Amino acid sequence: MKALLVIAHGSRRAESNDEVRRLTDTLARRAQAEFPIVCCGFLELAEPSIPNGIEQCVQAGATEVVVLPYFLSAGRHVVTDIPNDVRGKQEQYPQVNIRIAAYLGAHDRVTDLLLESALIPA
Amino acid sequence: MKALLVIAHGSRRAESNDEVRRLTDTLARRAQAEFPIVCCGFLELAEPSIPNGIEQCVQAGATEVVVLPYFLSAGRHVVTDIPNDVRGKQEQYPQVNIRIAAYLGAHDRVTDLLLESALIPA
Repeated sequence: MKALLVIAHGSRRAESNDEVRRLTDTLARRAQAEFPIVCCGFLELAEPSIPNGIEQCVQAGATEVVVLPYFLSAGRHVVTDIPNDVRGKQEQYPQVNIRIAAYLGAHDRVTDLLLESALIPA
Repeated sequence: MKALLVIAHGSRRAESNDEVRRLTDTLARRAQAEFPIVCCGFLELAEPSIPNGIEQCVQAGATEVVVLPYFLSAGRHVVTDIPNDVRGKQEQYPQVNIRIAAYLGAHDRVTDLLLESALIPA
């Protein structure tokens, strides 16, 4: 059973973390066929942490977890911190296939969305 | 003359800031007709700063600057820090129309890109 774990940075602002949770709900509805389990996790400042997010997926029955970094650039968090957190849980659950997907900013259609956003007032 | 100013967080990792500069180059090529001037600015940790980015646009002849937050959630940076930086330059250049556009994460097709990213290995 496949799980999708959306990883966001986490914010001191509760509304911002709730925004990620709403996005996760939207993804859960849309990705249902391929990912029966969809959770989110936060690098810092909010719960669940990344290890706890993976734990939730495993407890829900996941045999495969796709970790999806909701990040825009390949900074330290994407390159080092997320892989470190994932490694610990992979060692704990060697029978679960945990893999990290491309971070959002690597998608080449981000520029399309930016150009459209430029027309929308804040 | 319209300018587009892409605002990213900025990273200690030079490659990550260069990634934003490359994205800005791509946008410049694509948005040329509507935005003859396309620059980037960083909230922190990299140059140009947001005020300096606006300054570059104005010096290049911009009469209108669209500030485009390359951010995923409405955290403190989007809600408070970017508007504060913009306000100072707006006061300095009252004749230039500076407006802040919707941040990237507010775009409803971000979920499409996330689902596609889930299929791409890191």
